Amino acid sequence: MRRKTFLLIVVAIVVGVVAFMSPASPHAPQEAAPIFVTEIPPGYREWRFISVAHEEGNLNSFASILGNDIAVRAYREGKLPFPDGAIIAALHYRFVPSAENNKAFGRDQSFVAGAPTNVQFMVKDSKKYAPTGGWGFGHFNSDGKPVADAFMKTCFPCHQKVKERDLVFTRYAP
Amino acid sequence: MRRKTFLLIVVAIVVGVVAFMSPASPHAPQEAAPIFVTEIPPGYREWRFISVAHEEGNLNSFASILGNDIAVRAYREGKLPFPDGAIIAALHYRFVPSAENNKAFGRDQSFVAGAPTNVQFMVKDSKKYAPTGGWGFGHFNSDGKPVADAFMKTCFPCHQKVKERDLVFTRYAP
Repeated sequence: MRRKTFLLIVVAIVVGVVAFMSPASPHAPQEAAPIFVTEIPPGYREWRFISVAHEEGNLNSFASILGNDIAVRAYREGKLPFPDGAIIAALHYRFVPSAENNKAFGRDQSFVAGAPTNVQFMVKDSKKYAPTGGWGFGHFNSDGKPVADAFMKTCFPCHQKVKERDLVFTRYAP
Repeated sequence: MRRKTFLLIVVAIVVGVVAFMSPASPHAPQEAAPIFVTEIPPGYREWRFISVAHEEGNLNSFASILGNDIAVRAYREGKLPFPDGAIIAALHYRFVPSAENNKAFGRDQSFVAGAPTNVQFMVKDSKKYAPTGGWGFGHFNSDGKPVADAFMKTCFPCHQKVKERDLVFTRYAP
């Protein structure tokens, strides 16, 4: 009876340790569920300018990419990987022609930011977001709500294509 | 002799007053020489984001428009005309396709900021820049040097086309 109790305790400890270790274990990456950014980082509209971008096609987007102090400092110092605490925000708008600017210029040449569509975030926390390269991804439509996890699961595989730049597409505009 | 002296003094005073008043007189706007911004306002790269813009054609530019605290506050409060001290900066880059982004996306759709070309400023000082609607215009090429006055004289006539928005083309992107 004593031996049985001892064995049960040993088994329970082993099960407990394995259960505790599994999510962070390098031997079981396929079990690690990605964690997404579900709250909009406060004050992002006051952050500093990193660069601009435009995507054609279905996206038809005009983006301004901003960074918090930690992100901007890392960019300027060329520091890779980005340190924990770095946050990059991509403010997306519709890419629309400006009738009023074109009228002033006397020709069709001007495109401006139209209605806001969404804001995306990359939040660096190498522990919390370990399953997705240390980055937490967030996408909030103009209603301020995060999008469904099914959509969010597409972020990491695409950003992984620029692994040599710590998953960050945007380069700093001087 | 006394009468002659008195008359001379009166004439001298009238000439002096006219000479003093002329530059600001609404009757002689053609005599008021425009004054341009000849020094880059310090710290503009740290300012907050107002909006983005793209010009096609010869300009082929990608712009990020930033503002100092006074300018951004006026924008957010919808305050027109802009108060003295407001400064708006337009950072211009080449509008270039991104081969590395297109490769990741698997299609040609991505445009980013290329080499910086120039930075333009509008500095509000209703007294100093009275001849040009209270705004001082500045244009600095990527070498940091201001451009020639002949070029600068084209700023005000074009910006005057948006007089109802205090000569400012860019609208605030929320």
